[in-house]
Amino acid sequence: MKKNIKVNAAILIIGNEILSGRTQDTNTSTLATWLNSIGVKVGEVRVIPDDEKIIIDMVNLLRKNYDYIFTTGGIGPTHDDITAESISKAFGLNYEIHKEAFKILEDYYKPGEFNEGRQKMTMMPSNANLILNPTSGAPGFNVENVFCLPGVPSIMKSMLGGLKHKIIGGEPIKSFTISLRTVESEIAKSLTKVQNDNSEVEIGSYPFFQSGKLGVSIVMRSEDQNKIDKCSSEILKFIKDKNIQIVDR
Amino acid sequence: MKKNIKVNAAILIIGNEILSGRTQDTNTSTLATWLNSIGVKVGEVRVIPDDEKIIIDMVNLLRKNYDYIFTTGGIGPTHDDITAESISKAFGLNYEIHKEAFKILEDYYKPGEFNEGRQKMTMMPSNANLILNPTSGAPGFNVENVFCLPGVPSIMKSMLGGLKHKIIGGEPIKSFTISLRTVESEIAKSLTKVQNDNSEVEIGSYPFFQSGKLGVSIVMRSEDQNKIDKCSSEILKFIKDKNIQIVDR
Repeated sequence: MKKNIKVNAAILIIGNEILSGRTQDTNTSTLATWLNSIGVKVGEVRVIPDDEKIIIDMVNLLRKNYDYIFTTGGIGPTHDDITAESISKAFGLNYEIHKEAFKILEDYYKPGEFNEGRQKMTMMPSNANLILNPTSGAPGFNVENVFCLPGVPSIMKSMLGGLKHKIIGGEPIKSFTISLRTVESEIAKSLTKVQNDNSEVEIGSYPFFQSGKLGVSIVMRSEDQNKIDKCSSEILKFIKDKNIQIVDR
Repeated sequence: MKKNIKVNAAILIIGNEILSGRTQDTNTSTLATWLNSIGVKVGEVRVIPDDEKIIIDMVNLLRKNYDYIFTTGGIGPTHDDITAESISKAFGLNYEIHKEAFKILEDYYKPGEFNEGRQKMTMMPSNANLILNPTSGAPGFNVENVFCLPGVPSIMKSMLGGLKHKIIGGEPIKSFTISLRTVESEIAKSLTKVQNDNSEVEIGSYPFFQSGKLGVSIVMRSEDQNKIDKCSSEILKFIKDKNIQIVDR
């Protein structure tokens, strides 16, 4: 039954370091690629500061408009890690020690090393569901459809495997790319016609520079492989007619 | 006079390729770093699809709430490049050939090469101000406080120099980083005290892995160097007391 339902998500990147340009966000790309593979389409991404009111407002807005919300950042032990407390307030839940998380970290650290800062990482919205962390111990969590993950990319990525069974996606979103030795203006008109004739396939055109040469990648995306195939054959036809070189497909 | 005014901006990244995870956005980091250097603080970033209604709504919302809006993406020659037309509609302006842009591209291309696709790149909101493009000819533009730049990172970056005189920033935002051989939980409590005593400095704490070792970077940000210096000396004091190794500062 689930196969025909379109499932969407928003990503909320929480952190002043992204907004200042100091840190290059890579979690959006990791999360979006993974979500597409399990049939969840990302509708929008917002990057917001470590500001309680903004986090609460954004979470409460987005969780009503999307099937799933994924936040990254702000669940560590320092003063600027305010995501868990903000999510508690967004849902009107107590912000308190999560017993299971406390037990996990108590076992994870050597005796005497489970200090106040580390204990802060077990403070969560009451009755939050844990998202296990195979890299560094401290779990993420979800409350209803809001999933909170850490900001450190390698740790965040390592937690996705354990998250998969909690997300009910639709049909995986497939894509097919044809890369050409041409410029966009040469194919713009023909590509517009193919897009108009294939409205259910999302066709993107992306110029690139590689080994000092210009090229264009045409990306087709849809849940339906047959529709991609039809679209692709129409594109290959006009490429042949125009005598354009295919670099990769 | 301008020195004490806080100036803010929002960045709007337009493109399905970012939301699908296919393309890693790097324009946010480039723009934010540059904006900070001219005294403009980025308040939020949104990544949205190539969808006319969404672009119009977002631009009209953000341009009222921020001093400046910067968009990237969607100003090329293909069917999925709908930023210029959407901005025209957002402002209730005609979407038409910009005579100056047309002249620039007519001169830029060899005779006979200024085809229909390339001419589309001269279609803009009426009376838009051009942002010159030293890399590939086709200009960006601004209407009031909304500045529209291309999505290709190298081209986007090359246009910032020509844009500088159009942006009136405040005092440049300065930052100072101290990197430590420690973990966040060791310094969390002391750092919270320093943040509480220095509310006008934004202090961030960011764990890192380097050469197989854990560390933490403490980043202080403010328009006022004296406030950063005071904050920094308080941090260096507790670091010394705790006998923590400084990796870099």
